[in-house]
Amino acid sequence: MSAEPQLLAEAPPVSLSPDGAVFRIPSEEESRSTFSEIAEFAKAHRGRGGQIVVVQGLGFVGSAVAAAVASASDEAGRPLHYVIGVDLATPASYWKVGKINEGEPPFRSPDEKLPPLFRQAVHERANLRATTCETAYSLADVIIVDVPFDVEDRAVQEATEIQVDLAAFERALHTIGRHMRADALVLVETTVPMGTCERIALPILREERMRRGIEEPVLLANAYERVMPGPGYLDSIRSFRRTFAGVDDSSTERARSFLSTFIDVENHPLWELGDTVSSELGKLLENSYRALNIAFMHEWTLLAEKIGVNLFEVVNSIRVRSGTHDNMRYPGFGVGGYCLTKDSLLAQWSAANLFGVDTELEMTLAGLKTNYEMPLHTLQLAEEVAGGTLAGKTIAVCGVSYLAGLADTRNSPTETLLEGLLEKGARPRLHDPHVATWIERPEIDIVQSLSDALEGADGVVFAVAHEEYVSLAPEDLLACLDGNAFVVDAQNVLTDAKARLLHEAGRRVIGVGKGHWRKNHYDVEQ
Amino acid sequence: MSAEPQLLAEAPPVSLSPDGAVFRIPSEEESRSTFSEIAEFAKAHRGRGGQIVVVQGLGFVGSAVAAAVASASDEAGRPLHYVIGVDLATPASYWKVGKINEGEPPFRSPDEKLPPLFRQAVHERANLRATTCETAYSLADVIIVDVPFDVEDRAVQEATEIQVDLAAFERALHTIGRHMRADALVLVETTVPMGTCERIALPILREERMRRGIEEPVLLANAYERVMPGPGYLDSIRSFRRTFAGVDDSSTERARSFLSTFIDVENHPLWELGDTVSSELGKLLENSYRALNIAFMHEWTLLAEKIGVNLFEVVNSIRVRSGTHDNMRYPGFGVGGYCLTKDSLLAQWSAANLFGVDTELEMTLAGLKTNYEMPLHTLQLAEEVAGGTLAGKTIAVCGVSYLAGLADTRNSPTETLLEGLLEKGARPRLHDPHVATWIERPEIDIVQSLSDALEGADGVVFAVAHEEYVSLAPEDLLACLDGNAFVVDAQNVLTDAKARLLHEAGRRVIGVGKGHWRKNHYDVEQ
Repeated sequence: MSAEPQLLAEAPPVSLSPDGAVFRIPSEEESRSTFSEIAEFAKAHRGRGGQIVVVQGLGFVGSAVAAAVASASDEAGRPLHYVIGVDLATPASYWKVGKINEGEPPFRSPDEKLPPLFRQAVHERANLRATTCETAYSLADVIIVDVPFDVEDRAVQEATEIQVDLAAFERALHTIGRHMRADALVLVETTVPMGTCERIALPILREERMRRGIEEPVLLANAYERVMPGPGYLDSIRSFRRTFAGVDDSSTERARSFLSTFIDVENHPLWELGDTVSSELGKLLENSYRALNIAFMHEWTLLAEKIGVNLFEVVNSIRVRSGTHDNMRYPGFGVGGYCLTKDSLLAQWSAANLFGVDTELEMTLAGLKTNYEMPLHTLQLAEEVAGGTLAGKTIAVCGVSYLAGLADTRNSPTETLLEGLLEKGARPRLHDPHVATWIERPEIDIVQSLSDALEGADGVVFAVAHEEYVSLAPEDLLACLDGNAFVVDAQNVLTDAKARLLHEAGRRVIGVGKGHWRKNHYDVEQ
Repeated sequence: MSAEPQLLAEAPPVSLSPDGAVFRIPSEEESRSTFSEIAEFAKAHRGRGGQIVVVQGLGFVGSAVAAAVASASDEAGRPLHYVIGVDLATPASYWKVGKINEGEPPFRSPDEKLPPLFRQAVHERANLRATTCETAYSLADVIIVDVPFDVEDRAVQEATEIQVDLAAFERALHTIGRHMRADALVLVETTVPMGTCERIALPILREERMRRGIEEPVLLANAYERVMPGPGYLDSIRSFRRTFAGVDDSSTERARSFLSTFIDVENHPLWELGDTVSSELGKLLENSYRALNIAFMHEWTLLAEKIGVNLFEVVNSIRVRSGTHDNMRYPGFGVGGYCLTKDSLLAQWSAANLFGVDTELEMTLAGLKTNYEMPLHTLQLAEEVAGGTLAGKTIAVCGVSYLAGLADTRNSPTETLLEGLLEKGARPRLHDPHVATWIERPEIDIVQSLSDALEGADGVVFAVAHEEYVSLAPEDLLACLDGNAFVVDAQNVLTDAKARLLHEAGRRVIGVGKGHWRKNHYDVEQ
């Protein structure tokens, strides 16, 4: 018994943040002791009439929401809420707690508003702290649930294959139920299968509260996040319309008044729905719509390439029809990220498993499958322009994140391309100006210099329209490229003029949705 | 030889307009003789520096375009163009010629701007006339092609089954080629399969002109119409963005300058595409996008009904996301009209038959099929609420046109419902305040009074959200309905309050996308 602490002292468990910072994970006792200080501040805040808000789960959404809630002020500029972020004391999660307590956002984001927001909340206003201590829930007036609710595998072929990872969410709700005050509001912000509040969260909270002798009705609401990656990250929380619904009238009212404290509801009024099932469904439908519209464009992309049409130009001509067609998507490389790649699966899973109905969202799931496989079309273009085989060829893949300008690599379509390249015996060489380490594929080296990535490559694939690639001068690209190298533009990175220059300099150039390049450069006549 | 004219004189061939007007179809000689007067006016107009514009095909689009072109004026208010509308001397078509020459639009439209426009053009400005005489083409500076390009059958199950009705279009182009001036511009406005200008029209025009010894390049362009039914009909021609492309630079320039004479290009700039294939594809893609987004919503409608969700409310909450989600469609009864029901088929047909490529627009065609079959879901709801069978039941179907507020019955989804009802042994009773005669189903009687239609019916289906139905007071509806009658609301005609009233008065009420009615009224728990 006495040897073990010694051992721990020699090699304490640590948690590594993506940018390389090392945080020692505190023991339960240490955590409790640090928390007692947080609790003092929190209680003092309540003593002054403020609320205590606990955010459960400090991922992309939870951490930013914690900072946004902490930024809410009364008319005199004093903090309305004392915010405590809670995450797990594990190597995979603790660094987020550590980062926040240092006054920094745990995730890189192009939104310049985020770093000062965390700094102010932690160091100046002193109303944001993070902890691993579950006691936090016992203090909360409001508990925001931002833990993941994910599927086991996104690459499913059949509706019946969909498996959701319910455990983390259920555990999180049990924890809340064991600690929460009787009159605290639980606000589910995570994207969840419809029916989750009524059929999963409510029974768990009731059960845990019953054990504690609490018989009052649970205050529970859904207010799904619409967080958008990119420079408008924070605005997508504070200055964006929010849909919500409670499991009963009291829950609805509590949710409304809380949301109104940190959302600019004057300019972006809340939208109340009749029940939480509708609210949960809304989020899934909203993202499924987007995903399907991307998938739809893919089949027209394949057509346009074959008949010599520049589909970008055509889409632009259609998008002028504002209100009906201005959200038409462009040809592209694929779909990544946390939401669009899975939300339709949650809806289908819920229909079968939470409601027991036999509806199959056929078109929706077909769209998801199309999106998932989309990068394989780029692979095919590469193979074609390479003269039929990629075996043994060094392919520079430019872009690892799932969206231009972002460092986020979750479910990046580049991973699908990578696997395709490896399968075909190619030697992929990855580059991304925003990504130093590919968290999901740590074994893959990310080349840090673009010229190093391009030099000697047999071909290059532009998979993400990062500004660094878009602004690349054709002469610089030419200087890096071998005389026989080919270029595959999967994301409209090159202009027609650049493509023509490359073509005239003897480099084969092909592009997703760029039927006109094929027609103009190679005179393909059907 | 002498007996025949006698016979004709006794029973001259006539053409009947939908509103019952009878027009005697002129003989070729009569047509030529009337035309010589038109030709005099036209030539005099050209003598004053104006252009002669011939519109081929006086259907929904052609007739309105003819009037719009005739309304173009120079700065002094004088007509820029002399417009001659041409259609066939057949019972099915001639009445349009007759109507226009009387100074009336041939079609009923809720757009109040149209009747005065025809009256002015024909009677006051005297620069619009219609004829059946082909000689008209020989006068034209610009020939606008507005003849139909249709598919044989819209209810196809497989891409390979798609058959297009090429004959009318090819005949029309041959006629133009036999008569047109060497330097006339042919402007295809009809929605056509991509490749039609380059691969169908151009060869025909060249062939006919060659026979006449004309060797100059053909001036040919595509400028597809975006005509929208409803009160903004004329504005959708004159005050709406227009995409166009020519087969060569001269064609493009001629098209641009002509379109600029009658379209408000200052506020709605023209959009030039690189080639006619792109322009033709644009129209098909644009309508396919709309059609797919309607189909997508249908599978979520089925889900929402089963899990008790009011999908209208959810869609409204999502449509606030302007720019990305504000064109999300609502649950509904089906899709009708001339365009959305066939344009995807033209694209698929072109891929295989004009370009010989194997692309299959799977998702697009699946969407079209969903839309076509959508009214059968309403049939199913009727059957369910009727207690399992519709056999022998009198069903009042409210709405025959394909869109609220319109008289247009082309490809109306009500026809699909009608067939389903007949198949199930029901006795349908049709009503539509805008439709006196159902042109496509003349054997079906349209009951003229709504109370007559409802009286004694076992059930009523609201298939179109005509204002007359939406504004119906529940007590009036109740007064007409039998005590046991059921109501199926397929188009969001009833408010929740009205549905509750009907429910409380013992009428079973069910609605497309109205899962909450099912849940609230019948307490269906999954």
